[in-house]
Amino acid sequence: MAKKFVYRFSEGNATMRELLGGKGANLAEMTTLGLPVPQGFTITTEACTQYYDDGGKISDEIQAEILHHLDALEETTGKKLGDPENPLLVSVRSGARESMPGMMDTILNLGLNDQVAEGMVKLTGNPRFVYDSYRRFIQMFSDVVMGLPKDAFESYIDALKEDHGVQLDSELTAEDMRTLVGLFKDYYRSRMGSCFPTDPKEQLLEAIQAVFRSWDNPRANVYRRQHNIPYSWGTAVNVQMMVFGNMGDDSGTGVAFTRNPATGENALYGEFLMNAQGEDVVAGIRTPQHITHLEQVMPEVYQQFCSVANSLENHYKDMQDMEFTIEHAHLYMLQTRNGKRTPQAGVKIAVDMVGEGKLTQAEAIMKIDPTSLDALLHPCFDQKALDAAKPVGVGLAASPGAACGAVYFTAEDAKEHAKSGPVLLVRRETTTEDIEGMTASQGILTAFGGRTSHAAVVARGMGRCCVAGCKDLQINYAEHVLTLNGNIVREGQFMSIDGSTGNIYLGQMPTVDASVSGDFSTVMGWADEIRQMKVRANADNPHDAATALNFGAEGIGLTRTEHMFFLADRIPAMREMIVAKSEDQRRRALAKILPMQRGDFEGIFKAMNGLPVTIRLLDPPLHEFLPSEDADIEVLAKDMGLTFKELKATVLSLHEVNPMMGLRGCRLPILYPEIGEMQTQAIIEAAINVTKETGVAVTPEIMVPLVGSKGEIKFVKNLIKNVADKLISESGLDMHYKVGTMIELPRAAISADRIAEEAEFFSFGTNDLTQMTFGFSRDDSGKFLPAYLDKKILENDPFARFDELGTGRLMEMAVQYGRQTRHDIKLGVCGEHGGDPASIAFFQKVGLDYVSCSPFRVPIARLAAAQAAIRNPRA
Amino acid sequence: MAKKFVYRFSEGNATMRELLGGKGANLAEMTTLGLPVPQGFTITTEACTQYYDDGGKISDEIQAEILHHLDALEETTGKKLGDPENPLLVSVRSGARESMPGMMDTILNLGLNDQVAEGMVKLTGNPRFVYDSYRRFIQMFSDVVMGLPKDAFESYIDALKEDHGVQLDSELTAEDMRTLVGLFKDYYRSRMGSCFPTDPKEQLLEAIQAVFRSWDNPRANVYRRQHNIPYSWGTAVNVQMMVFGNMGDDSGTGVAFTRNPATGENALYGEFLMNAQGEDVVAGIRTPQHITHLEQVMPEVYQQFCSVANSLENHYKDMQDMEFTIEHAHLYMLQTRNGKRTPQAGVKIAVDMVGEGKLTQAEAIMKIDPTSLDALLHPCFDQKALDAAKPVGVGLAASPGAACGAVYFTAEDAKEHAKSGPVLLVRRETTTEDIEGMTASQGILTAFGGRTSHAAVVARGMGRCCVAGCKDLQINYAEHVLTLNGNIVREGQFMSIDGSTGNIYLGQMPTVDASVSGDFSTVMGWADEIRQMKVRANADNPHDAATALNFGAEGIGLTRTEHMFFLADRIPAMREMIVAKSEDQRRRALAKILPMQRGDFEGIFKAMNGLPVTIRLLDPPLHEFLPSEDADIEVLAKDMGLTFKELKATVLSLHEVNPMMGLRGCRLPILYPEIGEMQTQAIIEAAINVTKETGVAVTPEIMVPLVGSKGEIKFVKNLIKNVADKLISESGLDMHYKVGTMIELPRAAISADRIAEEAEFFSFGTNDLTQMTFGFSRDDSGKFLPAYLDKKILENDPFARFDELGTGRLMEMAVQYGRQTRHDIKLGVCGEHGGDPASIAFFQKVGLDYVSCSPFRVPIARLAAAQAAIRNPRA
Repeated sequence: MAKKFVYRFSEGNATMRELLGGKGANLAEMTTLGLPVPQGFTITTEACTQYYDDGGKISDEIQAEILHHLDALEETTGKKLGDPENPLLVSVRSGARESMPGMMDTILNLGLNDQVAEGMVKLTGNPRFVYDSYRRFIQMFSDVVMGLPKDAFESYIDALKEDHGVQLDSELTAEDMRTLVGLFKDYYRSRMGSCFPTDPKEQLLEAIQAVFRSWDNPRANVYRRQHNIPYSWGTAVNVQMMVFGNMGDDSGTGVAFTRNPATGENALYGEFLMNAQGEDVVAGIRTPQHITHLEQVMPEVYQQFCSVANSLENHYKDMQDMEFTIEHAHLYMLQTRNGKRTPQAGVKIAVDMVGEGKLTQAEAIMKIDPTSLDALLHPCFDQKALDAAKPVGVGLAASPGAACGAVYFTAEDAKEHAKSGPVLLVRRETTTEDIEGMTASQGILTAFGGRTSHAAVVARGMGRCCVAGCKDLQINYAEHVLTLNGNIVREGQFMSIDGSTGNIYLGQMPTVDASVSGDFSTVMGWADEIRQMKVRANADNPHDAATALNFGAEGIGLTRTEHMFFLADRIPAMREMIVAKSEDQRRRALAKILPMQRGDFEGIFKAMNGLPVTIRLLDPPLHEFLPSEDADIEVLAKDMGLTFKELKATVLSLHEVNPMMGLRGCRLPILYPEIGEMQTQAIIEAAINVTKETGVAVTPEIMVPLVGSKGEIKFVKNLIKNVADKLISESGLDMHYKVGTMIELPRAAISADRIAEEAEFFSFGTNDLTQMTFGFSRDDSGKFLPAYLDKKILENDPFARFDELGTGRLMEMAVQYGRQTRHDIKLGVCGEHGGDPASIAFFQKVGLDYVSCSPFRVPIARLAAAQAAIRNPRA
Repeated sequence: MAKKFVYRFSEGNATMRELLGGKGANLAEMTTLGLPVPQGFTITTEACTQYYDDGGKISDEIQAEILHHLDALEETTGKKLGDPENPLLVSVRSGARESMPGMMDTILNLGLNDQVAEGMVKLTGNPRFVYDSYRRFIQMFSDVVMGLPKDAFESYIDALKEDHGVQLDSELTAEDMRTLVGLFKDYYRSRMGSCFPTDPKEQLLEAIQAVFRSWDNPRANVYRRQHNIPYSWGTAVNVQMMVFGNMGDDSGTGVAFTRNPATGENALYGEFLMNAQGEDVVAGIRTPQHITHLEQVMPEVYQQFCSVANSLENHYKDMQDMEFTIEHAHLYMLQTRNGKRTPQAGVKIAVDMVGEGKLTQAEAIMKIDPTSLDALLHPCFDQKALDAAKPVGVGLAASPGAACGAVYFTAEDAKEHAKSGPVLLVRRETTTEDIEGMTASQGILTAFGGRTSHAAVVARGMGRCCVAGCKDLQINYAEHVLTLNGNIVREGQFMSIDGSTGNIYLGQMPTVDASVSGDFSTVMGWADEIRQMKVRANADNPHDAATALNFGAEGIGLTRTEHMFFLADRIPAMREMIVAKSEDQRRRALAKILPMQRGDFEGIFKAMNGLPVTIRLLDPPLHEFLPSEDADIEVLAKDMGLTFKELKATVLSLHEVNPMMGLRGCRLPILYPEIGEMQTQAIIEAAINVTKETGVAVTPEIMVPLVGSKGEIKFVKNLIKNVADKLISESGLDMHYKVGTMIELPRAAISADRIAEEAEFFSFGTNDLTQMTFGFSRDDSGKFLPAYLDKKILENDPFARFDELGTGRLMEMAVQYGRQTRHDIKLGVCGEHGGDPASIAFFQKVGLDYVSCSPFRVPIARLAAAQAAIRNPRA
């Protein structure tokens, strides 16, 4: 049977959104519910895909099917496209599976030509309405279908108003509108070389193609990328009989929400305009009235609308965003959809609707977008100040929140001045050496680097606001000054940055602290009951651990030990260890680091109060701890009592062509077992001390990074056991600990069965696993990844959203192999993906035991894990 | 049932070498054949493994089993260990599964103490023989079992000879020997703090443990690594009744081969000494006689030996290497094994034995070590010159053959001086810029880099001799001079290098060209009939293609197009393309490269005469085409009419943190489609021109590198098809071409089902696939890979031998997924592993269609593929 590409509204329903798009499915559903919907039909998303497969052409078959449905529509309405006696006018609107507001194109009043216009004047006795509609149609068609510039048309209108000495469009007469129609058609012919199409069927088919084309326009592509909507979905097209809100004082149009989308309050919210078309409400020339005022104007229509709104909310079990038109006192519903809402409102509506008995807790959980919670957890700018302010530049929204402070250009300066007031750290890019300055700052602004740059990753981990990769930002370190789109800001002057939008402002903008209402805790409580995966946090110090605990983390999934080494009081010992010429010298330097590491671990163990803590052994290549510039080497050499030549030689010997694939991770303790021994000693002694001091048993989990073969984990595990078992036996405690491994190399996943013979847990390091699986260096992929997304070679940035089709297969193998060898192996994930809802959904399917993410993402992960468990419950 | 750890010789046979080791299995086999073998027993390799598992101890059970077999041996021989009346003496020798000559330890004459010695004097009437045996035993036991220095004992002997004014050991009397026994025992006690053990059973158990320990000695570890013998195998221990060739003129000892191991000639080959023990033959103090001379000395024994030799060769179906002893005119066989032989001899023996009806062709194929063929394909040093010469240094044997030439330190100088005589290129390391200099040189010597460094890989591809990574080599580029272990060699002076051993010599050593005899072709012919995989070659130019064809390649599996860009007349256009600021400028530069590329491809297509040729699109990161040092940038900028700042900016913008995972491979034509278009045009136009000119249809295979997702290959394939189909249609030819992809990223293997929707063939780039799967950067892994092998974390270098357990699983997935989507997809391998016999065996199992390797490895691959097909035939 041939595929069906066109559906009457009465043939569809709300479950068909993949085929009919959101708008089409909801129009069909409303039709089925018996609500007053102007009739029409939907051309499916598959027709759109087919259009692209056919090289940008509507095939003869689909064209025939469209015209067949047009016939049927004419029969239902009793009107006829192009018939001056009883003309049918239609709107042609896009409608994708997911709402993409304002992203694609719409054409109204289609079906008008000179004859039809004259006929309508006779029918309505309202020539101004008719010619206003006609000139609007020509404008929209020329712009949307033919790509002629909107401005040209507006300038004709402006010229005419000037001629007549009037200000407003509404002051133009019917005759003026007729004049404009003539001018518009002349302009069209002069630019297009042919007349404006008078055949309504030609108009219709051209308009449908224009909607299909709009799926591929740049705005739509950018929007899809931001919202993870696959290009392959395509858009549907809705062809619907026009109804008119501008036919007189008994007509009108409006938009309304069933609840307040800003606060969540349970009261109809929206506005309307009498004698107006939809675009007038938006245009802001006349001031619309609040929806409740409609009760005074047309009480019956208002009652009908309230009843429709109520039944739609009950039917969809969600707050609705509706468009309606009143034509000669008849109410028509033009659209309904689940309404967008602020994060606060989202939480309140979900909780209220459970209270009203409209939703179960699980249903309520599904209504909240987990990523929206982010905004509830960070300070934001005062809305009034924000409305008044104009950004001077924009970067990537790398870590959410709002920050304001005096600008400093080095980590040292930021740290110093943070003592006397809030500071912003502004750098070309950050490195591990900047950690202390970042901690001291309210926010971080960088000129280079993407969402996964060092600044972005570390800032998110700390919950610091960060705007990264602002291309227009020039920093002159020597003169302590920045330039941004012509604005000059010197050290110490104030700037404000919005890490949720990427906007950058001059001066001090007031911020408002995050207010987490009781509804938030209620929702989190429901989520915790429902979810099946544990949620841990990544935390490198007691402060972050405490934050994580506060946000509901059930343990630490990743403590990176290297950040501890970068602190100013520690890095000298670390450097001494690196330049050591013998194992003995190395051991002496390590002995200085030992008490500091032990202290760090004690702090974290205490903060977590017996919850599991996974500590990763030293991971980065050693050269990261040494300076690379000659001038810095010179200074450090002097400090260390070395010659420049000696230190330079060490730096050179540590240089690697591809450091990501070089001497790091478990390769370090394999070459220098004393490093692993010192770290084990620090971990176990800290666990012993805290257990003895608090009486709460600590069970450390020691994680070996960058393992690719059983031999590696076996070697390092032996080394750990030799140290740990001796210390524990001397302590007299019955202490337990686990040794496990990161799964971050493809070979680790592939040979997980053998690695699990030694490893007691796996933690997927999805950042590195993604890098190695794709062969994408995160530091370098900025050069080509944007082009990959632009050219649709990849649907998503695999560093933001876990790649299920490729890297995901490796994870599935590792899970299966790992359990095959060790049925109770603990499986978790500690990459950036651990806080991404779409990725969390996959981890639920694959069967992981927990996810670990930065402390500020913990609530998001808790909610996302609950949603994942609802969608794919485990036995 | 308890495991059996000890076997009497009469309990075993030749098939049990895994358990009994090679020596033990062959002693058992000879015993079963009824040959005269002194009786004994073998302690299994499993006992060795158990010894290590038990922490370096022989368990009580195994000890009991040994002593039980000792009892049985005493019963069989009628002699008794430690019984002065009728003493049993034994030898204790190691014997691993694969022969490891000289790598492990042996103890002779075990069972002697003062009482036994006195008893033996009475029994033999030969006190000198007895005390000579006794002092030898003490020496060996002290050295092998207790680790006392050999020199100490030798110095006692030297002192005694000086005292007596004699020169030779043989001039020492029985009394002298007895004195030495006393001195040795005193020395032993002074060093060990206890007396030399007099209990023969204690001696025996200590000796057995010493053999087990010897499995783990450094020599053995190095040997195993070189020969790919797993550590986990362990060694067996053979305890055998001593027989003595030094009991008078009717006794003797010797070694012999059933055929000449140097030439392969079918005639008994070997030597013997009368009245001597085995070590005397090796020691070179007396000159042994040729084996055929034995006929005159002891005709009956000689006849018996000939008959034994003949039956052993027939039995084992291979040339045998035998040890024998004659005690009082009785022949005893002490060992037989398949004899080591020169590559020439190996081929001749295999062919002869087929001619003699002793072997089938397939059996003959299995007798030849494929890697040994390498030596037949390259020039080598004249053997006499080699014997007389002393190397001044040694590096890695990176590419086989011998070379001699005047030393030059830059590619330019080498190229220039090669016009007037042979040159050697000596560099710290080579880069792609050195290609022309390498081509012009007889051989390449480098100070850095391993077997897979640029110099090594390229040299092997060219069949140039190369010694790489000579650590002792210092090069002063500024003064055009090198220093090597105190020797100074200036530019223009001669050196000689041996790429098969890594040895480096001063001056000119005469070389002999490779001589490939008729037997070689015969064997290759048999191999071609048997094998199931095709063998192609990697070749980047017509000369290499011709070489490959000459060696029997059935096509080109990999033509790298980037090498073509590095030639001096081309790199300017390439650089112009790289610094171009617009697509237009890039296209203009590419237009200059087009005719050169087309010419290259025409040459290769012509050389291959219709055989398939796979051409890979440009792969390396663009920065490789630009200099990195400021001075070079300065010069180039001037040449190109740019400012230093401009060019430096380009160089910096191309810098990558991890270039291996950066902008390269298919990412280049995705960002700059015009590069892929130009290359496609060059390939297709060349194919058209050659087809028209020669009348032989050319079918190019265009290979897209570094693909990780279907989107990538789809994009590049479209780009190729757009260009190619137009050119072909214009040509009027009915030309076919294929578009396929390298599988060198883990994600490519994992998503091979989807990639195969577009790719018409897969070629596994096992070098990069290994890098990405392990996360081992080949350029950097030299820092830790040696430690991995030393510490037995990995059994093999995965760059030399394909990693079956990890990367191999990815390959299996890719093969399965690829065929699932496209059942006739062509599957090959073009990494370095394509020429490695062990890896080829795996590729046969996995089901690849072909391997591709450097031209000089083609015969090796042909033979290895035949062996693989014999071992694992496909339906």
